[in-house]
Amino acid sequence: MKAVRAHRYNDLPQLDNVEIPKVTGPFDVLVRIGAAGLCRTDLHIVEGQWDHIQHPRLPYTLGHENAGWVVQVGSAVTGLSEGDAVILHPLVTCGLCRACRSGDDSHCANATFPGLNVDGGMAEYLLTNARAAVKLDRALQPAHVAALADAGLTAYHAVRKALPLLPPGSHAVVIGAGGLGHIGIQVLAALTAATITVIDRSEGALHLAKSIGADHILNPVEPNDTLATRVQDLTGGGADVVFDYVGEHGTPELGLAFLRNRGSYFTIGYGGEVSLPTLDLISREISVVGNLVGTYTDLEELMALTADGKVTLHTSSYPLGAYAEAIRDLEAGKVTGRAILVPEGR
Amino acid sequence: MKAVRAHRYNDLPQLDNVEIPKVTGPFDVLVRIGAAGLCRTDLHIVEGQWDHIQHPRLPYTLGHENAGWVVQVGSAVTGLSEGDAVILHPLVTCGLCRACRSGDDSHCANATFPGLNVDGGMAEYLLTNARAAVKLDRALQPAHVAALADAGLTAYHAVRKALPLLPPGSHAVVIGAGGLGHIGIQVLAALTAATITVIDRSEGALHLAKSIGADHILNPVEPNDTLATRVQDLTGGGADVVFDYVGEHGTPELGLAFLRNRGSYFTIGYGGEVSLPTLDLISREISVVGNLVGTYTDLEELMALTADGKVTLHTSSYPLGAYAEAIRDLEAGKVTGRAILVPEGR
Amino acid sequence: MKAVRAHRYNDLPQLDNVEIPKVTGPFDVLVRIGAAGLCRTDLHIVEGQWDHIQHPRLPYTLGHENAGWVVQVGSAVTGLSEGDAVILHPLVTCGLCRACRSGDDSHCANATFPGLNVDGGMAEYLLTNARAAVKLDRALQPAHVAALADAGLTAYHAVRKALPLLPPGSHAVVIGAGGLGHIGIQVLAALTAATITVIDRSEGALHLAKSIGADHILNPVEPNDTLATRVQDLTGGGADVVFDYVGEHGTPELGLAFLRNRGSYFTIGYGGEVSLPTLDLISREISVVGNLVGTYTDLEELMALTADGKVTLHTSSYPLGAYAEAIRDLEAGKVTGRAILVPEGR
Amino acid sequence: MKAVRAHRYNDLPQLDNVEIPKVTGPFDVLVRIGAAGLCRTDLHIVEGQWDHIQHPRLPYTLGHENAGWVVQVGSAVTGLSEGDAVILHPLVTCGLCRACRSGDDSHCANATFPGLNVDGGMAEYLLTNARAAVKLDRALQPAHVAALADAGLTAYHAVRKALPLLPPGSHAVVIGAGGLGHIGIQVLAALTAATITVIDRSEGALHLAKSIGADHILNPVEPNDTLATRVQDLTGGGADVVFDYVGEHGTPELGLAFLRNRGSYFTIGYGGEVSLPTLDLISREISVVGNLVGTYTDLEELMALTADGKVTLHTSSYPLGAYAEAIRDLEAGKVTGRAILVPEGR
Repeated sequence: MKAVRAHRYNDLPQLDNVEIPKVTGPFDVLVRIGAAGLCRTDLHIVEGQWDHIQHPRLPYTLGHENAGWVVQVGSAVTGLSEGDAVILHPLVTCGLCRACRSGDDSHCANATFPGLNVDGGMAEYLLTNARAAVKLDRALQPAHVAALADAGLTAYHAVRKALPLLPPGSHAVVIGAGGLGHIGIQVLAALTAATITVIDRSEGALHLAKSIGADHILNPVEPNDTLATRVQDLTGGGADVVFDYVGEHGTPELGLAFLRNRGSYFTIGYGGEVSLPTLDLISREISVVGNLVGTYTDLEELMALTADGKVTLHTSSYPLGAYAEAIRDLEAGKVTGRAILVPEGR
Repeated sequence: MKAVRAHRYNDLPQLDNVEIPKVTGPFDVLVRIGAAGLCRTDLHIVEGQWDHIQHPRLPYTLGHENAGWVVQVGSAVTGLSEGDAVILHPLVTCGLCRACRSGDDSHCANATFPGLNVDGGMAEYLLTNARAAVKLDRALQPAHVAALADAGLTAYHAVRKALPLLPPGSHAVVIGAGGLGHIGIQVLAALTAATITVIDRSEGALHLAKSIGADHILNPVEPNDTLATRVQDLTGGGADVVFDYVGEHGTPELGLAFLRNRGSYFTIGYGGEVSLPTLDLISREISVVGNLVGTYTDLEELMALTADGKVTLHTSSYPLGAYAEAIRDLEAGKVTGRAILVPEGR
Repeated sequence: MKAVRAHRYNDLPQLDNVEIPKVTGPFDVLVRIGAAGLCRTDLHIVEGQWDHIQHPRLPYTLGHENAGWVVQVGSAVTGLSEGDAVILHPLVTCGLCRACRSGDDSHCANATFPGLNVDGGMAEYLLTNARAAVKLDRALQPAHVAALADAGLTAYHAVRKALPLLPPGSHAVVIGAGGLGHIGIQVLAALTAATITVIDRSEGALHLAKSIGADHILNPVEPNDTLATRVQDLTGGGADVVFDYVGEHGTPELGLAFLRNRGSYFTIGYGGEVSLPTLDLISREISVVGNLVGTYTDLEELMALTADGKVTLHTSSYPLGAYAEAIRDLEAGKVTGRAILVPEGR
Repeated sequence: MKAVRAHRYNDLPQLDNVEIPKVTGPFDVLVRIGAAGLCRTDLHIVEGQWDHIQHPRLPYTLGHENAGWVVQVGSAVTGLSEGDAVILHPLVTCGLCRACRSGDDSHCANATFPGLNVDGGMAEYLLTNARAAVKLDRALQPAHVAALADAGLTAYHAVRKALPLLPPGSHAVVIGAGGLGHIGIQVLAALTAATITVIDRSEGALHLAKSIGADHILNPVEPNDTLATRVQDLTGGGADVVFDYVGEHGTPELGLAFLRNRGSYFTIGYGGEVSLPTLDLISREISVVGNLVGTYTDLEELMALTADGKVTLHTSSYPLGAYAEAIRDLEAGKVTGRAILVPEGR
């Protein structure tokens, strides 16, 4: 089969002919890929930035946002059959560690991460396990949802954790209405009646935000002081929850300034630093909350929202063989929505 | 009546003769003071450090940890009568703002703070309101509990918030076994079955910690790296919750290093700074949680624990007139347990 | 002023001329009535059914669903001024008992209940207190929301309690799409992504249900066994939560049959009986949850939803003097939506 | 190996020589039995009462409360090795269904139940899977904890669910201080500071209750009305939570009468019926909560409490071959604590 594989860091990945992986383990699931998302993390992988974290053995196949159809299942798999359309949780988990047992499988102690440390889904077939496969509602096509498998899941997970903090009359502020943020906004609009204020430097992103649920939009052309004041005004004294989908270039500082007393700053984006006096944490009784991917149950719930039409994703589709063009477009900022790679003939 | 009043910052407060305050408002409660706690905050007040935060009008009476007996109540007060022994919540709250309505009265938008911005309890009588008074169980004496009104309440509140994170088999780490920390340890021992590891530089404090519920004690004479490794070992991979009762001199950095993935760092002490990369927050999915005083309900619950003998407080008693000696002893580190001032003849 | 007062049970109330009540207490609030809801409870009051529960002293003014404008406030009231449009929580609470302190003010130990045990709002003015008044958003008129003060609040409270049980992909079943039920459906649609199945004997009610958020509607013309089977099918194995807004005529038995394992039956309506073997409770691990009115915070949140256009209420307006006609229409089932009484000239 | 097998309902089981089961599946775990609990459920099984629920194929081996040592593991098992001491969750679960994924594995859609529908642990060896095995702390011996695997787990699970309802100052009432109840009392004492009132007809059980954490004990020799009044007095207005470990002979009626407004009746025992007017559910806003076994995580937590010495169990040990005597003693009420069967030579 065809597979887009990284051979050497900083080189363009190659389109190789490799063996179709085989079902050998009892919980193995072989998936015919419908589409694999391509995102900035893939660019970072190619640059070698993830090597010291995930230690993959090169060459290996990229692709960590995958969806498709079940081709074959291991002897112990229940509830999945050939032909089932599925989206794949980014982690292949064990089901036995403490985290898996308590429903926190995104912290599985024994997980592999296809596309990061083992072969991923930019190929015709992918080998995963039964714990990773979420069956799709008939209303959904693999190609339409693949890019939700990681980015969408991460955006959803953060909002899901924050729900008890966002009753009617409360205020949510979203920093960054890009790939993750625009999913977060849709989830907020679907699951809360909070007032949603969105901040982004792109007028296009703000326009989209407005059309999918934002009540207020702000472009931070002004100095930070003015922006904080405007947010304090719009929110009647500060946000109950700030979702920072950027996490760098000063957004943590801004996000913390947007909070009301007892508010929570949820960080999803990363790259920068959170820095604040303990006196400030205490006198305002605020919280800073990290967020990582999401659980299998989160992905099921996100698919329920998507099947309902409450979350939609704009994708730009490329044939698998055109991966180089897709990478160039992504680097050049020319992709509208999320890029996906679709094996020829699907 | 006698009252210890601050006249000028950096001067020793004076023992003045002033009028006994009068019940005028419908919810007013006049309390005959049984004891008022004296703590480091009082030293900071005298130094003027709180002036720009609380803006008191000098001269005024110190004392923000108060307990005593009801002498007279306003026309609208129910459930309190003359002679009732009471401990006083540090804030005098309104009962009408959003925070009060939802049970978060420690964030009352209209509160006064006796001893900080209006006359406090280092006197023979104190005027407060019905929303601040918690009736004491017969087993309890005002002098024995006064110092729990603020310090104890703060220590309790943090542990109370963390309870859902501390099931049997989990690990709590307490940094600092002093005035607040030693209450926190007792509350942890009473309300959880978590394994408790306590870190302090004082052998005496560690000895006390051991006797009131600590499973492990550590003196951080070693470099921080070693300490973090030892805590990771003792906790089988890191703490579920770290309670930092110090909040400065490097403890935030240490506390964050003690956490397991998904763990929470609760800061109660202050003075230092929390500083960490958003990547660290996210990849470990950890939280940083500020804590401030506690609610009226928290104080009721703490009194229930105290009446049950599950929380005890060591106090050193001084006559009200000996306040100067008490202050000197506190400054010199010569007070065992918490210092309280008791009006003569009580 | 004009007031509709009950003089003797089973007699039509009279339109009397009485004194305008006076602000005397520090937290008193005098409200010029914009509208008072009229509901079946009022009919039951007139029949004397509430006499042994509420013990009002006759004659007294009816009206327990009230909204209007502040005319005058007591000396201790903050945050309310003359002219403010307000909706009134049905209970006048103390703010001092354990329930009020913890945000459960609907269980206040010292409450009065205007319209049930003291003078209510079917009059030109009503005396209440500051703890009962929720300020209205500019988008809202007292007459439009008055009938939400009790019925709407009760419907909201039950859904609010159930939110953690209703993630995306879950199933809610609503029994009864009448006065309370149709609010409950709108709240479910606004705050969850659960699939909503509504059961009612009225085709009109089902039609309305469909237009405000129901995914499936069922008319129980079939025998109960068939109905339970159909609900089990529609919900893929049973409901996560059943909201029973009827609570009699066999609905509790039905509601329990609709549940999946670990499901919860929320009862809001009453009149019938819940009866089931402990073996059934245990082997299915189900819960039965009673619901009563709602808190002040619930009412604030409901008003936020209403101001947002997410909850709307159909009302039929009668002049206060036409109360007898309104009562006759209500008895005859001729009122569309909820009946409200509006003092002349407002 | 030796195994106690049921051949025909109502006949005494036989001690047979059977093959040692073999590890064939990837997650299989073969356990050398240290002890198997014997309880009333086993008597009911022998009488055929569970046949229509669990449909076992006779003959099969009894024993659903099992602990021992790992002998061999399947190819996919991680974290368990030969020689590990383990207690076994009563269900052998799949790890793939919705319940397993969210940590509610006691509602697994594909579970088997050794001792009820497949071969159990009254034998020298038992075949189970890796999802059922909880490793024991070195402080614990299989024989000492075996009887906690089902009875103890059930008692624990109910208290665990109720923890958020039982802050300091609250009141718990326990009906029945027998096999399950006396574990429940110890868990309450370990994890809450609630006041515990225990009701039982046996003076011995009440004496034990007092020694393990009960604050008040009551023998219901008096008519129910008096008892309810006494409980209302002892609890200052009713219990926050009632745990009914009996569930028949009038205890549900009693338990409901013990509640305060907003209280919850947790039923664990069964046999009787819960019956109450919806008006009562609503006007008091009470809840009725069913409880079933417990999760894997619950069992881990219970073992942590047990290793800590916070839960202890009295057992009467019989050699496996003396099962008939153990059954006779159990029927005759002559067993002190819980009976366990220990294979010869262990």
